Amino acid sequence: MSEAPKIMDVTKQVEFAAAHRLFRDDWSEEKNRDVFGLCANPYGHGHNYLLEVTVTGPVDEATGMVVHFASLKRLLEECVVRPLDHQHLNYVPLLQGKLPTSENLIACLWQELTRATAAQPWKLTKLRLGSTARNWVEYRG
Amino acid sequence: MSEAPKIMDVTKQVEFAAAHRLFRDDWSEEKNRDVFGLCANPYGHGHNYLLEVTVTGPVDEATGMVVHFASLKRLLEECVVRPLDHQHLNYVPLLQGKLPTSENLIACLWQELTRATAAQPWKLTKLRLGSTARNWVEYRG
Amino acid sequence: MSEAPKIMDVTKQVEFAAAHRLFRDDWSEEKNRDVFGLCANPYGHGHNYLLEVTVTGPVDEATGMVVHFASLKRLLEECVVRPLDHQHLNYVPLLQGKLPTSENLIACLWQELTRATAAQPWKLTKLRLGSTARNWVEYRG
Amino acid sequence: MSEAPKIMDVTKQVEFAAAHRLFRDDWSEEKNRDVFGLCANPYGHGHNYLLEVTVTGPVDEATGMVVHFASLKRLLEECVVRPLDHQHLNYVPLLQGKLPTSENLIACLWQELTRATAAQPWKLTKLRLGSTARNWVEYRG
Amino acid sequence: MSEAPKIMDVTKQVEFAAAHRLFRDDWSEEKNRDVFGLCANPYGHGHNYLLEVTVTGPVDEATGMVVHFASLKRLLEECVVRPLDHQHLNYVPLLQGKLPTSENLIACLWQELTRATAAQPWKLTKLRLGSTARNWVEYRG
Amino acid sequence: MSEAPKIMDVTKQVEFAAAHRLFRDDWSEEKNRDVFGLCANPYGHGHNYLLEVTVTGPVDEATGMVVHFASLKRLLEECVVRPLDHQHLNYVPLLQGKLPTSENLIACLWQELTRATAAQPWKLTKLRLGSTARNWVEYRG
Repeated sequence: MSEAPKIMDVTKQVEFAAAHRLFRDDWSEEKNRDVFGLCANPYGHGHNYLLEVTVTGPVDEATGMVVHFASLKRLLEECVVRPLDHQHLNYVPLLQGKLPTSENLIACLWQELTRATAAQPWKLTKLRLGSTARNWVEYRG
Repeated sequence: MSEAPKIMDVTKQVEFAAAHRLFRDDWSEEKNRDVFGLCANPYGHGHNYLLEVTVTGPVDEATGMVVHFASLKRLLEECVVRPLDHQHLNYVPLLQGKLPTSENLIACLWQELTRATAAQPWKLTKLRLGSTARNWVEYRG
Repeated sequence: MSEAPKIMDVTKQVEFAAAHRLFRDDWSEEKNRDVFGLCANPYGHGHNYLLEVTVTGPVDEATGMVVHFASLKRLLEECVVRPLDHQHLNYVPLLQGKLPTSENLIACLWQELTRATAAQPWKLTKLRLGSTARNWVEYRG
Repeated sequence: MSEAPKIMDVTKQVEFAAAHRLFRDDWSEEKNRDVFGLCANPYGHGHNYLLEVTVTGPVDEATGMVVHFASLKRLLEECVVRPLDHQHLNYVPLLQGKLPTSENLIACLWQELTRATAAQPWKLTKLRLGSTARNWVEYRG
Repeated sequence: MSEAPKIMDVTKQVEFAAAHRLFRDDWSEEKNRDVFGLCANPYGHGHNYLLEVTVTGPVDEATGMVVHFASLKRLLEECVVRPLDHQHLNYVPLLQGKLPTSENLIACLWQELTRATAAQPWKLTKLRLGSTARNWVEYRG
Repeated sequence: MSEAPKIMDVTKQVEFAAAHRLFRDDWSEEKNRDVFGLCANPYGHGHNYLLEVTVTGPVDEATGMVVHFASLKRLLEECVVRPLDHQHLNYVPLLQGKLPTSENLIACLWQELTRATAAQPWKLTKLRLGSTARNWVEYRG
């Protein structure tokens, strides 16, 4: 008689290079500068973003895995890297009508990835987005 | 009608170079050596400490942020880097009367940072202090 | 009258270089390739594995520590590095009869480390194993 | 009688977040895409650039240093971080009329830093610019 | 009249996970153990190898580049990652009849990459191979 | 007939945690502050120093190596880590009578390591010392 499967977290990190600018057209230059600082600079600036995607589920007895890292890689290539890498975040469909902050980006990615993985035996439990090695935002839905 | 704001964690990492020595005057040399090992060596040694500060709060709908990283940076410059960088932890006011272990340092910083951020819409939820890339202490209050 | 001791997490990271191959003899070549991809390649491949071990407990008032990092280092040298470093995981006793996935390895290490630390005032609360900087598995028992 | 001063290299690394787009208006869309690939995407994308600046000179007997790292830091804040951080490289004066490749950027910085350090007892001997952790350009004048 | 083109180094880093064992059949167990230490363990162990490939050449005036990083990436996918990733180095054709040390591997890759880039306006000038973050071999032909 | 042995560089990195203070007793407080800045703070501060040691020599045909990394490790444990780790550099014999700058430290280590490896078929060709990830000194004798 086999024991209950163990529940584990599996995390895959991907990277994408993108530009963004934090600026609201309905605010004055001064207010934008005041709220967003250097991030309001014209034309935008950029980052090598790191996204850590954590999914949680039972370890499959036959394979000894929650999910193969190669499957996660294909998923993230499709849902994260292809639409965001080498893009200016102020112009990508994913963020349409939203300020391209790390918080808003991570909320959009959450929705996208939840939808794309609805049929899996594991589920998305955490997203962590770093715009630099020193600045991170984390969301658990 | 807008939805409830999303709750997210924002983490900022800062670095400071400091010395410390683990040694109790009310213990014998032997006991100090036994408990603290090389950390009891005379005069002290040092580290490039990394502190990760996590705050949690609602994403502001107007700014798309929990808090601007630049605000966290100013806070941590003031409360962490200025009092600790290029100091010997056995002699800083923040740790007065306490052994300068990572655990005691993080407890003092918790108090300091909680006080300094009491008026914010977000609150301090985690501190993580690394004395080397391989040794970390974490505290959640 | 002293306050209640603070509860903190202490994490130590160790590294070991090992080989592994994901392959089930009771499956066909095709099925192995289908499920395990490149990891089913003959003879195996390898990684510099990183293991992060987190223990949780009260900060001792006399020492200002939950546990000295040097004690954790000795424990992990004994229970992790010595049996796994420079080994082929398909042939180590620790994993006997199990597929050497990160998930199975972390489950075995959990058992081993729980047993080895049963008498401590702190306890094992998390293991995190990275086979590359981008691929991690985490387990909390 | 003192020996001849030792000649050493001192390297300081700085980081700046910037956007860029590789695109020539005098070329067709097709040719731009063919030569620059994803880097020709509209609006640009971005990176956390790392610049390593190496200067070489004699170790001063009185100070035991070639140059204090804090002096290099001030120099690089002024000549590199202030003009480039949080900017779109296609619009900064430093690169006017030039394609913002790593090679062209490093050539401009070489000129700038050589001029700014002409009066020093040490001289600029190497610049190394990384647009990601995996892609670097190096120049020695 | 345009100036002479600047000569620069361009470096691309790639990673591959491989196993290897250092053992000579024509030596006794004792001698193998004596010379190769833990690297002589049966079945082999493994690493996440990092290879840094440096090429040197003139900055093209039209493109502002020595070579596009994407071209280097394709080259290295073909010549390094495909033949070596997820392989056991004792069994790959590239190293046939040679002990799979970092030195021998880098010599074979030098030959392979020199041949593959013979027609380029730039040339291979350095290979640097890390078997761990702390152990590197470098070769300049 | 065998070809001439290939000449390669082998680099091993070690880490040690130490304190230091830059201060000359024969200078005034003001002059010390002026020249050494925060590094003149009383009692000293500290770093996790990284030392990269490069040796150069022929690849031995029998072993396929210039030198086994384990041999370098033993050498550096003995000559670098044991005398410097968990020490205050202002009080170690190696630096007696010298200001504990990175430049002076690297010059002393050069002498020490050259002497210790005089009998080897390879020789010390470079030392690189980082006091933080952003500040490095390099010496080639």
